[in-house]
Amino acid sequence: MRLARFDGGRIGIVLDQEIADITGIAGVDPAEWPATGVLRLIRDFDAKRAEIEAALESAPRKPLAAVRLETPVPWPNKVIAYPVNYHAHGKEMQAQYRATNQGFFLKPCSSLSGPADPVVLPNVPGREVHHESELAIIIGKQVRGLKREDWREAVFGYACLLDMVVRGREERVFRKAYDSFCPVGPWIVTADEIEHPDQLGMKLWVGDELRQSANTRDLVLDIPGMVEMASAVMTLYPGDIIATGTPEGVGPVVAGDRIRIAIDQIGEMSVDVVQGELGMSEPFAQPYVPPIVKQN
Amino acid sequence: MRLARFDGGRIGIVLDQEIADITGIAGVDPAEWPATGVLRLIRDFDAKRAEIEAALESAPRKPLAAVRLETPVPWPNKVIAYPVNYHAHGKEMQAQYRATNQGFFLKPCSSLSGPADPVVLPNVPGREVHHESELAIIIGKQVRGLKREDWREAVFGYACLLDMVVRGREERVFRKAYDSFCPVGPWIVTADEIEHPDQLGMKLWVGDELRQSANTRDLVLDIPGMVEMASAVMTLYPGDIIATGTPEGVGPVVAGDRIRIAIDQIGEMSVDVVQGELGMSEPFAQPYVPPIVKQN
Repeated sequence: MRLARFDGGRIGIVLDQEIADITGIAGVDPAEWPATGVLRLIRDFDAKRAEIEAALESAPRKPLAAVRLETPVPWPNKVIAYPVNYHAHGKEMQAQYRATNQGFFLKPCSSLSGPADPVVLPNVPGREVHHESELAIIIGKQVRGLKREDWREAVFGYACLLDMVVRGREERVFRKAYDSFCPVGPWIVTADEIEHPDQLGMKLWVGDELRQSANTRDLVLDIPGMVEMASAVMTLYPGDIIATGTPEGVGPVVAGDRIRIAIDQIGEMSVDVVQGELGMSEPFAQPYVPPIVKQN
Repeated sequence: MRLARFDGGRIGIVLDQEIADITGIAGVDPAEWPATGVLRLIRDFDAKRAEIEAALESAPRKPLAAVRLETPVPWPNKVIAYPVNYHAHGKEMQAQYRATNQGFFLKPCSSLSGPADPVVLPNVPGREVHHESELAIIIGKQVRGLKREDWREAVFGYACLLDMVVRGREERVFRKAYDSFCPVGPWIVTADEIEHPDQLGMKLWVGDELRQSANTRDLVLDIPGMVEMASAVMTLYPGDIIATGTPEGVGPVVAGDRIRIAIDQIGEMSVDVVQGELGMSEPFAQPYVPPIVKQN
């Protein structure tokens, strides 16, 4: 199933070129703040699935092109992200580390945006903002200390994710935290539809230019390993998002660009890049920050 | 006012040695998952304050010693943390950077724990886990792009915070992300009660040994600056937590220790340190990770 949020927090199942509105059956109040109804839906999805499937025939439908898709999980417990997790990207970044020896970092929930939202470039003159195309894993169960062989128990589904970043030598999280720097979508494809998430082709274009083309089979730390590592450290909750890392081919975007990401069996989304006025901050106002050795 | 969560998600106001139960007036359902009722209470607090004050006289009360205090905000949008933000701590860590040139990082919401919860050491032989005592700022309003002179608009209150960390050279977020690695409490003191948060003495003991003793006047990036920098990058939401950085004197804790943190005008809390079985993970299983230069 393709589970989507749309038109101000409504919940839908995407069927070919239509979307069936299951907001009521899902028990989600679109006006709720914070928008955590989809977390309960994901938590209870197995129990509700038969009811949802039975209701699809009679649920109100709209053409997919007539709705505004939104980020599927706007207020998860956390967005986990694995750094340098494809060897070829490690080489292009001249990085001496990998996810396997560095672990993960985090993106703020406030950076999550949807397929219809633009990426808003911060006003930080002299800095490049880069695209990173990634497969997102959506967690379905509360787990801690999961073994790698049990990884499927924890996974609810998959989506496309753009991990946007201001290049530089400041704290990685800080440079990746801007509002709109984590588009996720266009929907979540439930795990039962993707038997081999470790064999998914992924492509990213800026305009007509193909910038990134890779396959999840080339991940350094694989999906079972990522679920195991995250759950070794933290309790994972329904709706938690794991950004699995980007392959080679990252590069700058500028205002006016359109970024398209497509992942096999999931779908594709295109987001506009626009220039914002906010975002300048003391670290980016300094002319030069020397390379640092991580200490604490 | 001293706003606390206790006994399974109930909301209380602490009055000397008693706690007045205002769960009903606060409109918080203790059974709600995820526990986001306190976020709405913080958002609406100014409007509800008179009603809460009027109800205090007749609200059911319990001795403070008879309840179990819990982390005040268990599921915020984000927990922001400023690295190396006291000069003397920068020197002890031989760090070449400061919050002023590095920005912030994040802790996962799942690391939040309360005054009655132990810090659970991960099972990572050969590594030290260190205490870092910090002043926490609790955000009260949804803001973006706030100017430093308007910082008070955004602040709901203050609390004590322990930023626990596994020392090493892996990704900082990863080493600071363990469940129970972010005790916050014992309650939130609302901002109106603390006129000068930049003049607060802060002390941390392990057992009877005073390890950290500092004053928030020695912060490198001050509180207005921290609010401004965070909101330059991200939309801040009611309930967001800012860990303001730790002073000199960080050091290891072991199972059986008891950590006590006390901050002027806020209060104090003591948490036990216990040994857990979980937490080993590939980066910590490697014998040596060389110093790295941050690249991406």
